Amino acid sequence: MRVTVADVIAIGPGKISLLEAIRDHGSISAAARSMQMSYRRAWLLVQDLNAAMRSPAVVSEHGGEARGGTVLTKEGEAVIDLYRRIESIAARACASEIESLLELLN
Amino acid sequence: MRVTVADVIAIGPGKISLLEAIRDHGSISAAARSMQMSYRRAWLLVQDLNAAMRSPAVVSEHGGEARGGTVLTKEGEAVIDLYRRIESIAARACASEIESLLELLN
Repeated sequence: MRVTVADVIAIGPGKISLLEAIRDHGSISAAARSMQMSYRRAWLLVQDLNAAMRSPAVVSEHGGEARGGTVLTKEGEAVIDLYRRIESIAARACASEIESLLELLN
Repeated sequence: MRVTVADVIAIGPGKISLLEAIRDHGSISAAARSMQMSYRRAWLLVQDLNAAMRSPAVVSEHGGEARGGTVLTKEGEAVIDLYRRIESIAARACASEIESLLELLN
Protein backbone atom coordinates (compact mmCIF):
# COMPACT_ATOMS: atom_id res chain seq x y z
CA MET A 1 0.00 0.00 0.00
CA ARG A 2 1.26 3.44 -0.86
CA VAL A 3 -0.17 6.83 -0.02
CA THR A 4 0.54 9.32 -2.77
CA VAL A 5 0.08 13.04 -2.46
CA ALA A 6 0.09 14.92 -5.76
CA ASP A 7 1.63 11.84 -7.45
CA VAL A 8 4.51 11.65 -4.98
CA ILE A 9 4.72 8.65 -2.68
CA ALA A 10 4.34 10.22 0.77
CA ILE A 11 4.14 6.92 2.62
CA GLY A 12 5.07 3.48 1.35
CA PRO A 13 6.64 0.25 2.55
CA GLY A 14 10.22 1.62 2.38
CA LYS A 15 9.56 4.62 4.60
CA ILE A 16 7.56 2.56 7.09
CA SER A 17 10.35 -0.04 7.38
CA LEU A 18 12.85 2.78 7.86
CA LEU A 19 10.73 4.34 10.63
CA GLU A 20 10.53 0.97 12.36
CA ALA A 21 14.29 0.57 12.09
CA ILE A 22 14.87 4.06 13.55
CA ARG A 23 12.52 3.18 16.42
CA ASP A 24 14.39 -0.11 17.01
CA HIS A 25 17.94 1.19 16.55
CA GLY A 26 17.68 4.70 17.93
CA SER A 27 19.45 6.54 15.13
CA ILE A 28 19.17 7.13 11.40
CA SER A 29 22.69 5.80 10.81
CA ALA A 30 22.11 2.54 12.72
CA ALA A 31 18.71 2.15 11.04
CA ALA A 32 20.28 2.69 7.61
CA ARG A 33 23.02 0.15 8.38
CA SER A 34 20.45 -2.42 9.49
CA MET A 35 18.66 -1.98 6.15
CA GLN A 36 21.88 -1.92 4.10
CA MET A 37 20.91 1.54 2.93
CA SER A 38 23.23 4.52 2.68
CA TYR A 39 22.98 7.11 5.44
CA ARG A 40 22.32 9.72 2.77
CA ARG A 41 19.37 7.82 1.32
CA ALA A 42 17.88 7.18 4.77
CA TRP A 43 18.32 10.82 5.71
CA LEU A 44 16.61 11.98 2.50
CA LEU A 45 13.68 9.59 3.07
CA VAL A 46 13.27 10.95 6.59
CA GLN A 47 13.33 14.54 5.27
CA ASP A 48 10.71 13.61 2.66
CA LEU A 49 8.48 11.97 5.22
CA ASN A 50 8.81 14.76 7.76
CA ALA A 51 8.02 17.31 5.03
CA ALA A 52 4.88 15.36 4.05
CA MET A 53 3.56 15.36 7.61
CA ARG A 54 1.82 18.08 9.61
CA SER A 55 4.16 17.31 12.48
CA PRO A 56 7.48 15.46 12.04
CA ALA A 57 7.66 11.67 12.40
CA VAL A 58 11.16 11.69 13.87
CA VAL A 59 13.29 14.22 15.71
CA SER A 60 16.99 14.29 16.42
CA GLU A 61 17.75 14.26 20.11
CA HIS A 62 20.66 16.61 19.56
CA GLY A 63 19.03 18.90 17.03
CA GLY A 64 20.58 19.79 13.71
CA GLU A 65 21.92 17.22 11.34
CA ALA A 66 24.33 15.44 13.69
CA ARG A 67 24.30 11.67 13.33
CA GLY A 68 23.24 11.41 16.95
CA GLY A 69 20.21 9.74 18.45
CA THR A 70 16.94 10.07 16.60
CA VAL A 71 13.59 9.22 18.13
CA LEU A 72 10.10 8.80 16.80
CA THR A 73 7.49 11.35 17.79
CA LYS A 74 4.01 10.17 18.73
CA GLU A 75 2.97 11.05 15.18
CA GLY A 76 5.76 8.80 13.85
CA GLU A 77 4.55 5.94 16.05
CA ALA A 78 0.98 6.60 14.88
CA VAL A 79 2.01 6.45 11.19
CA ILE A 80 3.60 3.00 11.68
CA ASP A 81 0.67 1.73 13.70
CA LEU A 82 -1.97 2.94 11.23
CA TYR A 83 -0.03 1.71 8.19
CA ARG A 84 0.44 -1.78 9.65
CA ARG A 85 -3.20 -1.92 10.77
CA ILE A 86 -4.40 -0.91 7.30
CA GLU A 87 -2.21 -3.61 5.73
CA SER A 88 -3.54 -6.31 7.99
CA ILE A 89 -7.21 -5.28 7.82
CA ALA A 90 -6.98 -5.05 4.03
CA ALA A 91 -5.22 -8.41 3.72
CA ARG A 92 -7.97 -10.06 5.77
CA ALA A 93 -10.86 -8.27 4.05
CA CYS A 94 -9.53 -9.05 0.55
CA ALA A 95 -8.01 -12.48 1.19
CA SER A 96 -9.96 -14.36 -1.45
CA GLU A 97 -9.55 -11.65 -4.13
CA ILE A 98 -5.81 -11.43 -3.43
CA GLU A 99 -5.55 -15.20 -3.74
CA SER A 100 -7.39 -15.12 -7.08
CA LEU A 101 -5.13 -12.31 -8.32
CA LEU A 102 -1.97 -14.18 -7.31
CA GLU A 103 -3.27 -17.28 -9.10
CA LEU A 104 -3.18 -15.31 -12.35
CA LEU A 105 0.51 -14.55 -11.83
CA ASN A 106 3.57 -16.74 -12.30
CA MET B 1 -1.89 -1.19 -3.89
CA ARG B 2 1.00 -2.92 -5.58
CA VAL B 3 1.71 -6.59 -6.03
CA THR B 4 5.44 -7.21 -6.00
CA VAL B 5 7.03 -10.47 -7.06
CA ALA B 6 10.68 -10.84 -6.00
CA ASP B 7 10.77 -7.07 -5.29
CA VAL B 8 9.58 -6.17 -8.77
CA ILE B 9 6.23 -4.48 -9.15
CA ALA B 10 4.20 -7.00 -11.14
CA ILE B 11 0.92 -5.16 -10.84
CA GLY B 12 0.36 -1.58 -9.76
CA PRO B 13 -1.87 1.37 -10.54
CA GLY B 14 0.03 2.29 -13.73
CA LYS B 15 -0.33 -1.10 -15.36
CA ILE B 16 -3.97 -1.39 -14.36
CA SER B 17 -4.79 2.03 -15.84
CA LEU B 18 -2.95 1.04 -19.02
CA LEU B 19 -4.91 -2.23 -19.27
CA GLU B 20 -8.15 -0.27 -18.87
CA ALA B 21 -7.05 2.15 -21.58
CA ILE B 22 -6.18 -0.72 -23.94
CA ARG B 23 -9.60 -2.24 -23.25
CA ASP B 24 -11.28 1.12 -23.94
CA HIS B 25 -9.22 2.18 -26.97
CA GLY B 26 -8.50 -1.16 -28.64
CA SER B 27 -4.78 -0.70 -29.20
CA ILE B 28 -1.61 -0.09 -27.28
CA SER B 29 -0.82 3.03 -29.32
CA ALA B 30 -4.24 4.62 -28.76
CA ALA B 31 -4.11 3.65 -25.07
CA ALA B 32 -0.63 5.21 -24.73
CA ARG B 33 -1.83 8.39 -26.44
CA SER B 34 -4.85 8.64 -24.12
CA MET B 35 -2.47 8.43 -21.15
CA GLN B 36 0.11 10.80 -22.66
CA MET B 37 2.63 7.98 -22.45
CA SER B 38 5.11 6.99 -25.15
CA TYR B 39 4.22 3.94 -27.25
CA ARG B 40 7.55 2.43 -26.21
CA ARG B 41 6.82 2.78 -22.49
CA ALA B 42 3.31 1.36 -22.88
CA TRP B 43 4.64 -1.55 -24.93
CA LEU B 44 7.31 -2.32 -22.31
CA LEU B 45 4.73 -2.22 -19.50
CA VAL B 46 2.55 -4.66 -21.44
CA GLN B 47 5.53 -6.99 -22.00
CA ASP B 48 6.35 -6.82 -18.27
CA LEU B 49 2.80 -7.58 -17.28
CA ASN B 50 2.37 -10.41 -19.77
CA ALA B 51 5.66 -11.92 -18.59
CA ALA B 52 4.50 -11.77 -14.96
CA MET B 53 1.29 -13.65 -15.75
CA ARG B 54 0.65 -17.34 -16.29
CA SER B 55 -1.35 -16.45 -19.34
CA PRO B 56 -1.04 -13.07 -21.12
CA ALA B 57 -3.30 -10.15 -20.18
CA VAL B 58 -3.45 -8.74 -23.72
CA VAL B 59 -2.94 -10.17 -27.18
CA SER B 60 -2.39 -8.49 -30.49
CA GLU B 61 -5.15 -9.26 -32.95
CA HIS B 62 -2.63 -9.35 -35.76
CA GLY B 63 0.15 -11.18 -33.99
CA GLY B 64 3.71 -9.92 -33.83
CA GLU B 65 4.60 -6.42 -32.79
CA ALA B 66 2.47 -4.54 -35.27
CA ARG B 67 0.75 -1.49 -33.84
CA GLY B 68 -2.57 -3.04 -34.75
CA GLY B 69 -5.52 -3.87 -32.56
CA THR B 70 -4.81 -5.28 -29.14
CA VAL B 71 -7.45 -6.92 -26.99
CA LEU B 72 -7.64 -8.04 -23.41
CA THR B 73 -7.82 -11.74 -22.70
CA LYS B 74 -10.20 -13.02 -20.04
CA GLU B 75 -7.20 -13.11 -17.69
CA GLY B 76 -6.54 -9.43 -18.49
CA GLU B 77 -10.17 -8.58 -17.68
CA ALA B 78 -9.90 -10.62 -14.47
CA VAL B 79 -6.78 -8.75 -13.36
CA ILE B 80 -8.54 -5.37 -13.73
CA ASP B 81 -11.67 -6.64 -12.01
CA LEU B 82 -9.81 -8.18 -9.06
CA TYR B 83 -7.50 -5.19 -8.65
CA ARG B 84 -10.39 -2.70 -8.58
CA ARG B 85 -12.40 -4.93 -6.22
CA ILE B 86 -9.44 -5.23 -3.83
CA GLU B 87 -9.02 -1.45 -3.87
CA SER B 88 -12.65 -0.80 -3.07
CA ILE B 89 -13.01 -3.54 -0.42
CA ALA B 90 -9.80 -2.34 1.26
CA ALA B 91 -10.87 1.31 1.14
CA ARG B 92 -14.16 0.43 2.81
CA ALA B 93 -12.66 -1.93 5.40
CA CYS B 94 -9.95 0.55 6.40
CA ALA B 95 -11.87 3.81 6.00
CA SER B 96 -11.34 5.11 9.52
CA GLU B 97 -7.64 4.12 9.66
CA ILE B 98 -7.02 5.71 6.24
CA GLU B 99 -8.73 8.89 7.44
CA SER B 100 -6.55 8.95 10.57
CA LEU B 101 -3.43 8.39 8.48
CA LEU B 102 -4.33 11.19 6.08
CA GLU B 103 -4.95 13.51 9.03
CA LEU B 104 -1.28 13.13 9.97
CA LEU B 105 -0.24 14.35 6.52
CA ASN B 106 -0.14 17.84 5.06
